[in-house]
Amino acid sequence: MIDTSRRSLLTGAAALGAVLPFAGALSTLGASPAEAALQPVGQQVPGVYRYKVGSIELTAVNDGVRTFPLAEAFVKNAKLDEVNAALEAGFMPKGQVTAQFNPLLLNTGGKLVLIDTGNGPQAGNATVGKLSANLGWAGVKPADVDIVIISHFHGDHINGLRTDDGMLAFPNAEILVPAPEWAFWMDEGEMSRAPEGMKGAFTNVRRVFKDLDSRVRRYEWDKEIAPGITSVNAAGHTPGHTAYVVASGDAKLFVQSDTTNTPVLFVPHPDWQVQYDMDGAKAAETRRKVYDMLAAERMQMVGYHYPFPATGFISKDGAGYRFVPAMWNPAI
Amino acid sequence: MIDTSRRSLLTGAAALGAVLPFAGALSTLGASPAEAALQPVGQQVPGVYRYKVGSIELTAVNDGVRTFPLAEAFVKNAKLDEVNAALEAGFMPKGQVTAQFNPLLLNTGGKLVLIDTGNGPQAGNATVGKLSANLGWAGVKPADVDIVIISHFHGDHINGLRTDDGMLAFPNAEILVPAPEWAFWMDEGEMSRAPEGMKGAFTNVRRVFKDLDSRVRRYEWDKEIAPGITSVNAAGHTPGHTAYVVASGDAKLFVQSDTTNTPVLFVPHPDWQVQYDMDGAKAAETRRKVYDMLAAERMQMVGYHYPFPATGFISKDGAGYRFVPAMWNPAI
Repeated sequence: MIDTSRRSLLTGAAALGAVLPFAGALSTLGASPAEAALQPVGQQVPGVYRYKVGSIELTAVNDGVRTFPLAEAFVKNAKLDEVNAALEAGFMPKGQVTAQFNPLLLNTGGKLVLIDTGNGPQAGNATVGKLSANLGWAGVKPADVDIVIISHFHGDHINGLRTDDGMLAFPNAEILVPAPEWAFWMDEGEMSRAPEGMKGAFTNVRRVFKDLDSRVRRYEWDKEIAPGITSVNAAGHTPGHTAYVVASGDAKLFVQSDTTNTPVLFVPHPDWQVQYDMDGAKAAETRRKVYDMLAAERMQMVGYHYPFPATGFISKDGAGYRFVPAMWNPAI
Repeated sequence: MIDTSRRSLLTGAAALGAVLPFAGALSTLGASPAEAALQPVGQQVPGVYRYKVGSIELTAVNDGVRTFPLAEAFVKNAKLDEVNAALEAGFMPKGQVTAQFNPLLLNTGGKLVLIDTGNGPQAGNATVGKLSANLGWAGVKPADVDIVIISHFHGDHINGLRTDDGMLAFPNAEILVPAPEWAFWMDEGEMSRAPEGMKGAFTNVRRVFKDLDSRVRRYEWDKEIAPGITSVNAAGHTPGHTAYVVASGDAKLFVQSDTTNTPVLFVPHPDWQVQYDMDGAKAAETRRKVYDMLAAERMQMVGYHYPFPATGFISKDGAGYRFVPAMWNPAI
């Protein structure tokens, strides 16, 4: 008994050591010699941040970050020079784009709800697929999640529904998807008419949702699809792209999903269309509509591709908008 | 032996439980039942964030936050209406001010250096004095710190030099203070000429530095006072108020100390003088000079009273400036 207990505790210490984000946890467990504290830790702390909307506890849970060379095609309707100027104005390196991935966990009191699932396990890519480790740091086991809400069917939002070996990553969760998104991607005609470069996305949707028809609940817009969470039509980025209003008491929060991609480019330039906007003009129209509303109502928002912890406010600024991060709160 | 080891490991688990910021650490240790994960955690994660400047590893370590009613006197040369308008523009509640306290830890490879020490133990005030707990989470024991650098002698920067019972909080650290700051506060004439409301600050300086003359090294400006850390004259806020340039290889970072108080007010309005600016006009002049330099050189900066993790960039914006937070980096 004592041996077992020792082993499990030591395994715990080893697990902490493997992650090593708070070396303090390690030294509390007596696993590191005093002088080790002088070595640089060399690793970031877990990507977890908590806040509240009324009585709902939200947790930003980072899935990682991707940095890639800026291609001419990345912004459909802006020149490379203009895009580089926007990067420079935001103090980001020119010639490359960095996008983060931030699923949102909500504890509604009765239900544990996850909005979007990140990139999933990515063999050989160490910069994404961190959701499950960060959920662990947040105290959540995959089996604890009651509801997974999907905003749209791009791979960086749905691939985390499956584990490495193709099993369901959240084995007890009901999976909620936008009805128009399901209708579009599952339509054989749409797949056959799609340009060659998009066939892979159709195939990926079929891989992720294979044999899940009966587990998936397809939701319409303007419905309370989980306690305090109402779906909002944000189509354009994809045909069924969905945003959410989270409400509790007098408090409200807008979850924009991919209404913009990385804010450094698309908040000051809302008419720019990212290459992933499937209907670029409609996506830009939705963006203006949503951001005008956020600015007018001064409503706190969450952006999936915003830098962690990915929440703040929008104000009007010249011809575009400005993002004001919510103050990091040492309490919640 | 086994008993001892069990006890220390269980104590470790209990310590984690007392803090409970990453419930994941708890469940790794098997200390919480599965269903507990469904309960809201109700507590923030530790205020620790790592980044690098060349080969120097920096850690923002939060000491907490204070929120207090906005008094007419808080900004010496602005009307309440103007201050409230600035709060509103920054999406902060009107009629109150929130200031954070963010000491900075630097691992220079050879030395562990702490710049400023926070509010120290504050009986009955649960919102500040978090430095030592957060250092623990960062893997640093007080005895590990080699050098403490003090920017100026206000209580929220020096009180953390002492523990609850008056002992030295960092027992092995050399303490570096600005020579002009020491000269001012230790001068009996200055103390006797000070307005009644400032006598307490003089008394506090004498309490904190009592019997430390031989342990304290008084530094001049424009000197490399610790590896890679150069002192910069930023007088005005106090007579010896000091900022720092941290340099490693080609990388540089500016540690502004209290060149501004909370950025929501003093970044867009650099000519506003906070009530703690002892020479208000000189403080505003220093602020303009520093922020013009930061904007021109696009140099990353750290602000003690900025929201955690308290680092980013400054650009010019109308008659004032704008703060652009550094992107939270999931790696370091």
